[in-house]
Amino acid sequence: MTEPALTPEATRPEAARPIAIFDSGLGGLTVMREVARALPHEDLIYFGDTARVPYGIKSPQTIIHFSEENCRFLCERDPKLIVVACNTASAAALPHLREHLDVPVLGVVAPGARAAVAATRNRRVGIIGTEATIKSRAYIESIRAVDPTISLINRACPLFVPLVEEGRTCDDPVVRLVAKQYLRPIREFGADTLVLGCTHYPLLKAALRQQMGRAVTIVDSAEETARATAALLDEMHLRRRDGETPAYRYFVTDNPVRFASVGSRIMRDIIENVSLVDLDAIARRPS
Amino acid sequence: MTEPALTPEATRPEAARPIAIFDSGLGGLTVMREVARALPHEDLIYFGDTARVPYGIKSPQTIIHFSEENCRFLCERDPKLIVVACNTASAAALPHLREHLDVPVLGVVAPGARAAVAATRNRRVGIIGTEATIKSRAYIESIRAVDPTISLINRACPLFVPLVEEGRTCDDPVVRLVAKQYLRPIREFGADTLVLGCTHYPLLKAALRQQMGRAVTIVDSAEETARATAALLDEMHLRRRDGETPAYRYFVTDNPVRFASVGSRIMRDIIENVSLVDLDAIARRPS
Repeated sequence: MTEPALTPEATRPEAARPIAIFDSGLGGLTVMREVARALPHEDLIYFGDTARVPYGIKSPQTIIHFSEENCRFLCERDPKLIVVACNTASAAALPHLREHLDVPVLGVVAPGARAAVAATRNRRVGIIGTEATIKSRAYIESIRAVDPTISLINRACPLFVPLVEEGRTCDDPVVRLVAKQYLRPIREFGADTLVLGCTHYPLLKAALRQQMGRAVTIVDSAEETARATAALLDEMHLRRRDGETPAYRYFVTDNPVRFASVGSRIMRDIIENVSLVDLDAIARRPS
Repeated sequence: MTEPALTPEATRPEAARPIAIFDSGLGGLTVMREVARALPHEDLIYFGDTARVPYGIKSPQTIIHFSEENCRFLCERDPKLIVVACNTASAAALPHLREHLDVPVLGVVAPGARAAVAATRNRRVGIIGTEATIKSRAYIESIRAVDPTISLINRACPLFVPLVEEGRTCDDPVVRLVAKQYLRPIREFGADTLVLGCTHYPLLKAALRQQMGRAVTIVDSAEETARATAALLDEMHLRRRDGETPAYRYFVTDNPVRFASVGSRIMRDIIENVSLVDLDAIARRPS
């Protein structure tokens, strides 16, 4: 009896390990959705720090502190890769996490920055995000690292997250008015590319497009990050290609019911398997 | 040589102890401002949990957990009284705090509820607050405990806090539009009294008044709580009446610079003496 021919992936039991996705709250589900679409055979674990959300109004020190605690919890589930699906945490904590964790860590900023450079024709790019992401200058530095000649403008948009979390959609008059105010300087700057530097913003894409005009390319970090995740798995020979139904699990530090209901809207699918994690079990675990 | 006649207060060294004010973030400064105005000789300590703010979107369990940690930190400063200046924490955690702390604890809900009952003429009262405060039904129960015949309507207003924190004021078109949407059912209900069940809302008073009309009484829990604080100190014979310049100290768990700048606007005064508290020193202290 001969052994069946195996693909390189199937020979590696490490490939069966899950991908872990970490976010400050719910917004990272837009990344999870794209990762699930791009990599349909992978088991996914999502962690949302809903007890301490939002991160976008907090200091780099606090964001690093919380991010490390959450990723250490995820590491106990033995993931093959951690995706930091939160722009604020990617901007503030990625170098720290890479230094202190033993698993590869991917953020959302660098994929978005590369896509913006590839997309712009007039070399004028606008970036929107939370207060902390914009203050960190992470997108500016990432884009300049690829192409230092691109002209950049950025703008914090603190109301977009609460507007999405309240369930408002692109045709809501408040959403339209706020989008108009926030995007005016970017439109006047003449940007032909707009980077959505927050995982909640893809849910407002139609309203943003309406303000920016049809000719502008909107870069959605969620899609770019899913592509980068697939590429990194290929590079590590850890991509699963077999046809099993993947398992999705969700961990949150507060309010699993609110997470399931608001999250199901974001995932455009029913969210089950949500577990509440005790914050005391997360905080200050030995490194 | 005879002893000088002393007022009862001056004979009690306990009266020199500070009043502690606890809030999830910045909003409680509206209470601090009123307490400072009503009790100009008292030392005040303010604690804002800016690393874990906001509480209004979180579960009762998490709000109780955080509130107890913060109040234990304040108790180490030996206050004569703790004012829970956060509606969300008052609504969710007050009975727990009273049971587990050795110092008298005053919330903002009961003073606001009593003032609403006293103010209404047509016995129709509207209440606005965060998601958690409205869900808790704390104002409804407090008002019904005083007068079960009053008709009540309530409404969560999740955007008001981020609108204030972004620095928007009452003449901002987004504030006006959002206020109109939120208050429409309360106006249609015919309430003659509106309870501001969140410490941020007094900063939007003019916009709320514009929507509700001049005839409506607006109950600001901050003012009511300052009155209740003075009354409780009198009752305990712990009010300071001497003329020393009082000391104000501020503790926050994150971003003292942002706190000082946004907070100075709320206090209408310059905030100094802001100390950053390490969250690890707060979390899980032995009870």
